[in-house]
Amino acid sequence: MKQNLDVILLAGGESTRFWPFSYKNLTLFLGKPLLRWHIEQLQRLGFTSAIIVGNKESIDAIQEVAIPKKFTVSYAIQKEKGQGYAIMAAREILPESERGLLILNASDIYEDELLIDVCEAYNDDPTALYQGAMKVNAYFPGGYLKLNDKGNVTEIIEKPKPGTEPSDLVRIVVDVVSDKEKFFEKLEKHGKHPINGYEGVVNKCIDEGAVCKPVITTREWLYLKYPWHMLTVMDSCLRTIEGRNIAPSVKIGKHVVIEGSVIIEEGVRICEGTKIVGPCFIGKGTIIGNNNMVRQSHIGENCVTGFNTDITRSYIGNECWFHTNFIGDSVIGNNVSMGSGTVLANLRLDESPIFSTIKQEKVLTGRSKLGACIGNNVRIGVNVSTMPGIKIGKGAFVGAGVVLGEDIPDGMYCRISPTVIMSKNTKSALGSREEFKKKI
Amino acid sequence: MKQNLDVILLAGGESTRFWPFSYKNLTLFLGKPLLRWHIEQLQRLGFTSAIIVGNKESIDAIQEVAIPKKFTVSYAIQKEKGQGYAIMAAREILPESERGLLILNASDIYEDELLIDVCEAYNDDPTALYQGAMKVNAYFPGGYLKLNDKGNVTEIIEKPKPGTEPSDLVRIVVDVVSDKEKFFEKLEKHGKHPINGYEGVVNKCIDEGAVCKPVITTREWLYLKYPWHMLTVMDSCLRTIEGRNIAPSVKIGKHVVIEGSVIIEEGVRICEGTKIVGPCFIGKGTIIGNNNMVRQSHIGENCVTGFNTDITRSYIGNECWFHTNFIGDSVIGNNVSMGSGTVLANLRLDESPIFSTIKQEKVLTGRSKLGACIGNNVRIGVNVSTMPGIKIGKGAFVGAGVVLGEDIPDGMYCRISPTVIMSKNTKSALGSREEFKKKI
Amino acid sequence: MKQNLDVILLAGGESTRFWPFSYKNLTLFLGKPLLRWHIEQLQRLGFTSAIIVGNKESIDAIQEVAIPKKFTVSYAIQKEKGQGYAIMAAREILPESERGLLILNASDIYEDELLIDVCEAYNDDPTALYQGAMKVNAYFPGGYLKLNDKGNVTEIIEKPKPGTEPSDLVRIVVDVVSDKEKFFEKLEKHGKHPINGYEGVVNKCIDEGAVCKPVITTREWLYLKYPWHMLTVMDSCLRTIEGRNIAPSVKIGKHVVIEGSVIIEEGVRICEGTKIVGPCFIGKGTIIGNNNMVRQSHIGENCVTGFNTDITRSYIGNECWFHTNFIGDSVIGNNVSMGSGTVLANLRLDESPIFSTIKQEKVLTGRSKLGACIGNNVRIGVNVSTMPGIKIGKGAFVGAGVVLGEDIPDGMYCRISPTVIMSKNTKSALGSREEFKKKI
Repeated sequence: MKQNLDVILLAGGESTRFWPFSYKNLTLFLGKPLLRWHIEQLQRLGFTSAIIVGNKESIDAIQEVAIPKKFTVSYAIQKEKGQGYAIMAAREILPESERGLLILNASDIYEDELLIDVCEAYNDDPTALYQGAMKVNAYFPGGYLKLNDKGNVTEIIEKPKPGTEPSDLVRIVVDVVSDKEKFFEKLEKHGKHPINGYEGVVNKCIDEGAVCKPVITTREWLYLKYPWHMLTVMDSCLRTIEGRNIAPSVKIGKHVVIEGSVIIEEGVRICEGTKIVGPCFIGKGTIIGNNNMVRQSHIGENCVTGFNTDITRSYIGNECWFHTNFIGDSVIGNNVSMGSGTVLANLRLDESPIFSTIKQEKVLTGRSKLGACIGNNVRIGVNVSTMPGIKIGKGAFVGAGVVLGEDIPDGMYCRISPTVIMSKNTKSALGSREEFKKKI
Repeated sequence: MKQNLDVILLAGGESTRFWPFSYKNLTLFLGKPLLRWHIEQLQRLGFTSAIIVGNKESIDAIQEVAIPKKFTVSYAIQKEKGQGYAIMAAREILPESERGLLILNASDIYEDELLIDVCEAYNDDPTALYQGAMKVNAYFPGGYLKLNDKGNVTEIIEKPKPGTEPSDLVRIVVDVVSDKEKFFEKLEKHGKHPINGYEGVVNKCIDEGAVCKPVITTREWLYLKYPWHMLTVMDSCLRTIEGRNIAPSVKIGKHVVIEGSVIIEEGVRICEGTKIVGPCFIGKGTIIGNNNMVRQSHIGENCVTGFNTDITRSYIGNECWFHTNFIGDSVIGNNVSMGSGTVLANLRLDESPIFSTIKQEKVLTGRSKLGACIGNNVRIGVNVSTMPGIKIGKGAFVGAGVVLGEDIPDGMYCRISPTVIMSKNTKSALGSREEFKKKI
Repeated sequence: MKQNLDVILLAGGESTRFWPFSYKNLTLFLGKPLLRWHIEQLQRLGFTSAIIVGNKESIDAIQEVAIPKKFTVSYAIQKEKGQGYAIMAAREILPESERGLLILNASDIYEDELLIDVCEAYNDDPTALYQGAMKVNAYFPGGYLKLNDKGNVTEIIEKPKPGTEPSDLVRIVVDVVSDKEKFFEKLEKHGKHPINGYEGVVNKCIDEGAVCKPVITTREWLYLKYPWHMLTVMDSCLRTIEGRNIAPSVKIGKHVVIEGSVIIEEGVRICEGTKIVGPCFIGKGTIIGNNNMVRQSHIGENCVTGFNTDITRSYIGNECWFHTNFIGDSVIGNNVSMGSGTVLANLRLDESPIFSTIKQEKVLTGRSKLGACIGNNVRIGVNVSTMPGIKIGKGAFVGAGVVLGEDIPDGMYCRISPTVIMSKNTKSALGSREEFKKKI
């Protein structure tokens, strides 16, 4: 498809709610950073260039993402937070043209169909504004679209009070700006509000007569906001795997069973008695130990899963070491290790929805099963238990036997207070167990 | 064998010492309630009908037990507790006849030989009373038979003081009443004592000249009194399994080993790397996870045992969920779940006989190995440890990491008091573990 | 090789730093006590007799060590501690001869080459003294050799202050005494100091003109001083195993994988799904349970490793019982048992070198991975965690759930203080988990 839009990828948002992880757009899925997935998608849909807007902290790392051949990326740095500032930063390096602008958010994941829809709509009528939206059937704390009887957007209303929503359409960042110059002018004047500077400008354009049409996604919105969103994005990436892709150098032990679609990269070793249930990704050089269960999971490079580990519906970064662990519905960063017997609980006793604490507030995660989110460079001792929805900050250490019911900030050491009692032993060990042995 | 006795099955006793379980007679073994086992035995021995006496609480559930074809059951409700009241309740619906009465206890398990013996004895001499008994070689807190030099019973003595036992014969409920009408008359007058009303009437009959002959069982007495008795009854039921009975719809994964006699019902799935050692029963729709060990156990319907679970010499009800647990010599009700790493310890460090607490008193269980008895609808978190002989009441929740050294009443929530200490981590995680990796 | 030296094996030293173990020289490796290994080595090198010097406590046990055919052992008892007293005790039973004396330490392990070197040197020049030594590249708290420019030893200096070492050669007990009578005379006068009585006499001989030549070992010195030294000696013994030595009566289950060189003795059973990675020794009658991992380890007789146990680089005595444990880089005595879920942690969170406490002082073990050292007759409950470098005394009991951060003296009982909280459960268990089941 020939594309008539210039693309701006917003990658300069903050990641504070993504803690204990950082730089959402650089997270690796199937060995590729999320930004690269976006670029490949754009290329697949006929685009040949994009502007990526980062911020001061992330721009260096962003520029290290490898760009595919025949695609051109320019980089801009936004000065303050907010979509308005991002667009203004992009404007500086935007080529002169009559083409419209397609604005996408690099921490959202878009299905091809939605982008095709919006591009085709623009081709049909390049004078209108377009606004992506998803249908919700419960209150969502975002911007809502108010429509007129022709179905066009008359206003974007930021976070209306529950019960006052103007429609069931929540705005997502698939924004098409036509008549750029007029838009930029307004943006310079009114677009500096960090929350709804951009939306305010759209509203102004509509007030002055612009037509704004909604483009509605047909599936659940996928995005990285909270750390557990890694799991939904992982699922989406794992579903792209087709068939068995096992590198020739992979060593597979006896009595291993591999089902479903998998990518198993070079140098991986899978030891005896292990079962892999796809879709799964196992990165270069990783050793999956004996008698493991790995299901619907994403395991990075150079990990060692050890003896008897169960990794289920989880995202594991690079260089992690496990040993007889249960890791279910969890997100683990890079260079994390766990001692034998450590379990990341993923289901509440009352099976109620799992919440997590974000900036002192309980946030419902929307998941009935969720383990832990563990930052880079964490060390966890033996026989530790973490409660569902717990987060562990970067560089934290957790001592043996801890039952962890609250988040650990970055760089803390959490241990149990010693509670052992020593007294003289009045009993003694019996020697013979022949009777037991007969029953084995 | 043509039978000349009417049968009364006593099923109205209380179950307080059976806590955390209820309704002993309705407990399922190999998918059938214990009452049904009794009825099938009676039919096998030539009986065609029976009266079942329940109590107000249990009668509805008792009436739901399916009765085999060509067998007739009538139901009575006893008003107060005690065998005397039960017989009086049965009398009301007893058909008019000259036949004697065979009274059996539905929470005892009888070998065929004993019942055949007592019926044949009655056929030989239908004028005598008969009284079941077992030989004991240590004091047992029950009713003892006093015999004369002809070997006939001269008196039933309830709980004599240790050292004053009149014989080594303890009464068990296999009672034959002849001359019913006289017996009933006496019962109306004297039989209302909850403990030995019935026995007192037998004693009176003997005093007035009736001959009472003992019928002695040749094997260990099997009964449900305390919850751990489920295990001996289970053993007895499991021993009736002959050969491999695996339903056609059962799915068995690779590298599964099944030894010994088993019943594996429809829709069961046994995952890779698991070993089953019979005798075992696995009920409909249950999933036995990967790398499990299931030995000499009884697992109900629609359970999921999860990854790496070891179930040894245990009774599991329906709808239970496990995950990497050790369940040894334990009794688990319906709809119980356990988190990963939870262990039911079944052996004391000093290997001494295991006791359990019943109504504030320590009761020796007679077992050197005994895990836990866990009521219906219990939820247990991850990495919990229960001590041998512990009981957990219905609907209780047990939090992660608890080391449980005492019983939990019904409907309680038991958790550890938080004892973690947080401090700044002065160490940091090392990155490279290449040296370790070489040794794998 | 014809040998012209009489051999004295010193086996009377104390073992206090070897706690929780005793009698180092009697420790079994591949089923043979260490003393027997020495005697077989001497026989292999052409010796036909030796004098073993024990102490009052150990001599009876020492005399029970079976001696191979065509080899003669005489026994002496030293009265006080110190090498001087040991030699004086040996002198009493020494045959009259002109032959020199070769003095070896029974808790050191010598490579054949070193002993051949020293014997050949003596054959070349039977008038000199010889002194074994190892090269060190860091300070070692032992006796150092001072050499003259001919390379001969001019003095043995006991524990010089760090920085004042006279050479990089540390004395090891491979001592050759020529001109015995003169030596014995001096020993009677000056040799009674417990620490350097013997070395003082050597120094005196040199002062009076004797030539003393060093004989230097080419590999790392192997010895039993601290309990974790069992692991290095074990490694050395395991490396002597060549090929697969599996007794005919060994039963090996399905899906078992055995790699590398092993000795598996009579009556051993290896259950399904287990992996053995040599070099490994498994003693008579031991049962290796299902789905185990046994790597580079030494397991004694009549052990039962239970379900799902991981034994890695560890020494296990006789009659031990495990069940779902991780035993890594650990030394376990005889008749030790562990409950399910118990883990011996073998790596610090900060991966720093592991120390152990000896006589109230932290001693660096020189190991980055070290689990626990556990004496005879210990019982450990379920879900226990021991920290790296911990020692547990003989006959101690450790209760369920303990996180053990300090040594336990002999005969103590260590348990957690109870910290559970009971409250009314305000939640209840949900019944249906059909949704979860679909995902299995």
